Amino acid sequence: MRTRFHQSLDELKEKLLRMGGLAEQALDRAVDAYRRRDVSLCQRVFEGERQINVMEREIDELALDLLAMQQPMAVDLRFIIAVVKINADMERVGDQAVNVEQRVMELAKLPEADLNVDIPRVAEVASTMVRTSLESFIYARPDVAESVLKMDNTLDELNAQTYHAMLAVMQKSPELTPQALNTLLISRNLERVGDHATNIAEDVI
Amino acid sequence: MRTRFHQSLDELKEKLLRMGGLAEQALDRAVDAYRRRDVSLCQRVFEGERQINVMEREIDELALDLLAMQQPMAVDLRFIIAVVKINADMERVGDQAVNVEQRVMELAKLPEADLNVDIPRVAEVASTMVRTSLESFIYARPDVAESVLKMDNTLDELNAQTYHAMLAVMQKSPELTPQALNTLLISRNLERVGDHATNIAEDVI
Repeated sequence: MRTRFHQSLDELKEKLLRMGGLAEQALDRAVDAYRRRDVSLCQRVFEGERQINVMEREIDELALDLLAMQQPMAVDLRFIIAVVKINADMERVGDQAVNVEQRVMELAKLPEADLNVDIPRVAEVASTMVRTSLESFIYARPDVAESVLKMDNTLDELNAQTYHAMLAVMQKSPELTPQALNTLLISRNLERVGDHATNIAEDVI
Repeated sequence: MRTRFHQSLDELKEKLLRMGGLAEQALDRAVDAYRRRDVSLCQRVFEGERQINVMEREIDELALDLLAMQQPMAVDLRFIIAVVKINADMERVGDQAVNVEQRVMELAKLPEADLNVDIPRVAEVASTMVRTSLESFIYARPDVAESVLKMDNTLDELNAQTYHAMLAVMQKSPELTPQALNTLLISRNLERVGDHATNIAEDVI
């Protein structure tokens, strides 16, 4: 029979996975708005942020409840502390989605420019890193965490490509500087998402 | 007589203050290198990062030890969990200092340009926010934490000014785009430092 403590620990895991799902959804929505140049989609990202903040608090409170129970074992203590840290990372992935959203709103005000840069691809790598890092933690799989570090190299490379491509646009066509700059900043926001996933993976390893 | 638990709690506070000091020092060093255009100063920032990482682990381990002691009270549990989160924020302030450093190294390769932007001022606000947010936590002063939120408005404003000033430079003098872009990114790194301080202040409030 599972003790109440272990039931609560399972609940904590489940909530953290849901938190990860919300963070990923926020990213997907932000990139969807970017792809379609549709500001009306931005509202969903802001709503998602509220849900994420509520979930963050729930997870922290549950973690505190668990710590307050009589003497959890060392391994469980470590797990609970890791959840609190990962929870904070997931909340900031949600913040990055909001940052992307704000750039999308800026871009929507500007004339459309074909900048020949694949933001959805960058977002896909970042989003996969978030999901994979969380799975490596929940299932205690350092090998899976290693794959996140590899994806981070890919993400850094994609981001460096975007940087150089946008720098070239700004120098060649100064009238497109606002569009190129906003696009470059979206790419950097996505790179930061990858940094959060990398933090998690490094802790797992 | 103080119990061993309370002695360790004091030690945790003291270590966190030292962690904050290291993070602030990293920022100061990075901005010093920017001001002097001196790449040789960058080495100190990278060394500082190693110290920060060591201190981060020490604090986490001490927090775990404290949690493993018999049934800390709820108020102490909350304090310890907050330390773990703030510790992670401080480590990322250190990461931002390294990011600034990398931009300084890029700038040093480029012809010097007078961009008429006050990065040391932006850094000063960000650095003060870090120190103040930490103090508001250690001394449990929500009123002090409120002042951090006000500083964050100033920082956002300074950052928006930099953004618009650099955008104007890029459009008017495309040959200065690399310099303007690196400067803009330094300003954004400093804004992120402010975000970490704001996270802490919001938790205190």
